[in-house]
Amino acid sequence: MSKVYTAASMSLDGFIADSSGGGFEHLFRWHGNGDVEVATAQPDRKLRLSAASAAHLREQLDNTGALVVGRRLFDMTGGWGGNHPFGVPVVVVTHRAPEGWPREGAPFTFVTDGIESAIAQARGIAGDRWVGVSGGSIARQCLDVGLLDEIQVELVPVLFGGGVSFFGALKGAPVELVGPTVVEDTDVTHLKFQVRRD
Amino acid sequence: MSKVYTAASMSLDGFIADSSGGGFEHLFRWHGNGDVEVATAQPDRKLRLSAASAAHLREQLDNTGALVVGRRLFDMTGGWGGNHPFGVPVVVVTHRAPEGWPREGAPFTFVTDGIESAIAQARGIAGDRWVGVSGGSIARQCLDVGLLDEIQVELVPVLFGGGVSFFGALKGAPVELVGPTVVEDTDVTHLKFQVRRD
Repeated sequence: MSKVYTAASMSLDGFIADSSGGGFEHLFRWHGNGDVEVATAQPDRKLRLSAASAAHLREQLDNTGALVVGRRLFDMTGGWGGNHPFGVPVVVVTHRAPEGWPREGAPFTFVTDGIESAIAQARGIAGDRWVGVSGGSIARQCLDVGLLDEIQVELVPVLFGGGVSFFGALKGAPVELVGPTVVEDTDVTHLKFQVRRD
Repeated sequence: MSKVYTAASMSLDGFIADSSGGGFEHLFRWHGNGDVEVATAQPDRKLRLSAASAAHLREQLDNTGALVVGRRLFDMTGGWGGNHPFGVPVVVVTHRAPEGWPREGAPFTFVTDGIESAIAQARGIAGDRWVGVSGGSIARQCLDVGLLDEIQVELVPVLFGGGVSFFGALKGAPVELVGPTVVEDTDVTHLKFQVRRD
């Protein structure tokens, strides 16, 4: 069944980047610490994961039918060169479509009328498959309007002491969650929470 | 073997209290959601835990030989009425011993020459048993001077969106951890990390 989820690698103290905007050598160590190769839609971007993390990530890759991302993430990654590693259509939430976009052969849609419209369009694309949302500020907007079903935290054993919070301030706080289901692995613990609806 | 550990119930976004200084009905739901009674040193303070959490908490209660706490926590709790629930000697880190303390029959020591002295005194009291430190600011001071061995996070499935961080800013960030070991239970996931020493 379709669902809207977000996923991020996060330090134990709740940060998805450190105070300098980095720290990725800690947060994504689990992307390269194993011997199971996981291909992405970008030929030169193969991950080498341990078995449990490979199964976890393949579940995301296999089930995600569309992504909703923020403009900041789109710009930071240079629009993933027109080809997101997940290999699925990407809906970008922005105030104005960037110069030179959309491009032929690159399945990127630019939505300028807000998060609810973006999720609706992504659901239409994904059909029965999942809609993934990132980064944190887009996930927060989804939570704030009640559109987020699931939070996947790849919990990394490091303390940053400051940085970019995964969620930041929330309109509907406290937000109660259900779970998590836990997958333990080296350098990461995969935690999957459902957003409580009652 | 003796070790210095800290433990706290924490929201998924890293807070041990919400923005109003509360949120304890979420953070400590696991203290009352089961049918295994765990007695503390305070006769009127019994916890009702589920089996896995009871075993986890009993391990803390059975192995802790002394506590180091900050003055804020001491004042907040009114010095636990002279009897900490753990039933062990308590070393209070403060600038000046409070009025009316120390008291006959209450095993509280007031240390005014800093965290390292407080830990040394607590180690002397605890012998082969563990030294527990709380709250967050005392744990942070221990981390900053390399005296913390273990971090126990009782991870609670809630997002506060803001509040009191468990650790806050850290001098030695990033602080790498090893683990966690995981105990899954209802309303809480017990995570135990070792502080990396190499």
